[in-house]
Amino acid sequence: MRRPLIALLTDFGWRDGFVGVMKGVILGINPEVHIVDLSHEIPPQDILAGALVLRSAVPFFPPGTIYVAVVDPGVGSKRRAILIETQRGFFIGPDNGLLSIAAPLETTRRMVHLVNPAYFLAPLSRTFHGRDVFAPVAAHLSRGVAVSQFGPVISEIERISLPAVKRGETSMTGRVIYIDHFGNVVTNISEADLRPFSKERLFISMGAMHISGIVDTYAAVEVGAPAALINSWGMLEIAVRDGSAARQFGIPVGCEVRVAS
Amino acid sequence: MRRPLIALLTDFGWRDGFVGVMKGVILGINPEVHIVDLSHEIPPQDILAGALVLRSAVPFFPPGTIYVAVVDPGVGSKRRAILIETQRGFFIGPDNGLLSIAAPLETTRRMVHLVNPAYFLAPLSRTFHGRDVFAPVAAHLSRGVAVSQFGPVISEIERISLPAVKRGETSMTGRVIYIDHFGNVVTNISEADLRPFSKERLFISMGAMHISGIVDTYAAVEVGAPAALINSWGMLEIAVRDGSAARQFGIPVGCEVRVAS
Amino acid sequence: MRRPLIALLTDFGWRDGFVGVMKGVILGINPEVHIVDLSHEIPPQDILAGALVLRSAVPFFPPGTIYVAVVDPGVGSKRRAILIETQRGFFIGPDNGLLSIAAPLETTRRMVHLVNPAYFLAPLSRTFHGRDVFAPVAAHLSRGVAVSQFGPVISEIERISLPAVKRGETSMTGRVIYIDHFGNVVTNISEADLRPFSKERLFISMGAMHISGIVDTYAAVEVGAPAALINSWGMLEIAVRDGSAARQFGIPVGCEVRVAS
Repeated sequence: MRRPLIALLTDFGWRDGFVGVMKGVILGINPEVHIVDLSHEIPPQDILAGALVLRSAVPFFPPGTIYVAVVDPGVGSKRRAILIETQRGFFIGPDNGLLSIAAPLETTRRMVHLVNPAYFLAPLSRTFHGRDVFAPVAAHLSRGVAVSQFGPVISEIERISLPAVKRGETSMTGRVIYIDHFGNVVTNISEADLRPFSKERLFISMGAMHISGIVDTYAAVEVGAPAALINSWGMLEIAVRDGSAARQFGIPVGCEVRVAS
Repeated sequence: MRRPLIALLTDFGWRDGFVGVMKGVILGINPEVHIVDLSHEIPPQDILAGALVLRSAVPFFPPGTIYVAVVDPGVGSKRRAILIETQRGFFIGPDNGLLSIAAPLETTRRMVHLVNPAYFLAPLSRTFHGRDVFAPVAAHLSRGVAVSQFGPVISEIERISLPAVKRGETSMTGRVIYIDHFGNVVTNISEADLRPFSKERLFISMGAMHISGIVDTYAAVEVGAPAALINSWGMLEIAVRDGSAARQFGIPVGCEVRVAS
Repeated sequence: MRRPLIALLTDFGWRDGFVGVMKGVILGINPEVHIVDLSHEIPPQDILAGALVLRSAVPFFPPGTIYVAVVDPGVGSKRRAILIETQRGFFIGPDNGLLSIAAPLETTRRMVHLVNPAYFLAPLSRTFHGRDVFAPVAAHLSRGVAVSQFGPVISEIERISLPAVKRGETSMTGRVIYIDHFGNVVTNISEADLRPFSKERLFISMGAMHISGIVDTYAAVEVGAPAALINSWGMLEIAVRDGSAARQFGIPVGCEVRVAS
């Protein structure tokens, strides 16, 4: 059997040892697991950003990967802890929508409410379920504990979704949903949304930024110039070559994007 | 035998490859070891912050873990390099107090002064003992080299301690000792310190921040409101729901905290 | 056989999951590989900084290590993807100079142009060759695929070099090439360059900073005072004890350094 793989995504940052402690818990339960860090710099409490980064990763991990995602402003409250089994793998985290984009209904096999304290640390803190609930459940799952052992099956979870794209005959309106490390501005408009239009004749505007046509690569424009392209997530993105589009044009998450042909 | 586990804590940051190089050294000596990053963003030269993060992690790692901690402003000077064996594991680093809170006297089995050059890299730099001393010693230890091989037993090390809590009949005064990635403000007042008092009737003040009562979870208060709670380290913490208490109230490490009932 | 080791260096940052996704790709192809992060905080598009950090690491990793380095402003353009085999290991990345300092001509055994799509992900994006080209090539190489399978041998690659040191009889002029996490200022003047001079009688100036003599350790000067020393990369460095030389003296990369005896 191949070594099981646990991928971690949190908004914990690297500084305080919270992520390291989760790994200590996991390796104490299953020393043979591989652990991969997906991101620990999701903006604090930003569930949508976490959900997007998680979704972008899943197609590139081996089937059967166990994803532990913790962006969890409601930790210790009545929000549930859940596990979702899909065709792609296992998703463990709080029931606040964080897992719902990466584990959509159409690929879901089973969802359970994590309630079995046999697989939690004791004593169970009210403020750090990454350490006390999600990490140990993932580690036990990686050792072969059956999904049904962790709690009862549930039929509904909290779901979030991207803001909708408004489509007209010759135009559409979307929104900025993410800004990456390079300052590239990612929209909710997908490659499929743009298929009816001619790439060369598109006109894109966003705040004070106006641009014509979609290019294939960052290097297709001059240094310092903006470029519109389909990014590695398959979404329409505005970048500035060797610069930061978000900073150069002052574009925040939520900003409206208009595309016309 | 289970795969040995080395946990790393430094103030090196991720940028310059210093941590990666330590891992290269370790894996060159013992390719079968697991390496876990505890933190590499301890504020530069902040020995107390490093000591606290290290202490917070130890209860959650498997026994026998080898901890390598390097916050080492005195590197290359006369400060000693040491190894402490405790009931929990092995602690390797500079003798400047960094290891002393996580490896207290009551759990200590043996302490040695690292002097045997057979287990150092050669040539030995004067500025990067993380790479040239601590990493190779940890790797050799993980391969089964006996503690006594690394140098002579010592009976005293540098010890640091948290600032003391001043206790009165109906009040106590403590200090802020740490601010985490979320801006949560951690004090030196422990859950045990608060046990004589009624949680509901406590009154806590810290700079311009005043708050009544201790809650169980971050989500127990309104968004933007401060909450006092016992955090995952078991310490009294002030947080702001979905915000940063340190920024909102301008509270630095060292700030006085007053608790009255 | 020892477990193969892949070391990653990028300018991707940790936030967006780009690095995690590369690891997912690698572990999907070779679940038995070790992956080490060298740095993911190379300043965006800063090829020289990436090349320097990569070079500094190579002597400390086991022979045969596979280095994947991606600082790649020309991704998707005509810049080639390459693999260099040297006496020390294998270097995979864009042909833009990034690999050229760590894999110099004198240690090179073979260089190939990565063109065989059998070892790329499909579909191949135009913007993320770290995920779609470099990660899968590294993983296949780690499983024993022969270097010659990845593409044709090439005889020339893009090479970059450090700015030259100008040497006089009793003085030399260099430049700041790197500033590390601590604010230490690294120059292009090597220990060998300084060998003709007396360390005690050297006079070093850099912007508004003037200093006499070279010391062995950071702790050899007072807190807050500047120190000149040979750093762990073997280069002349200016540091401020327990502080940031770059900030204290306002020194940027590129700043001229004068050394006189």
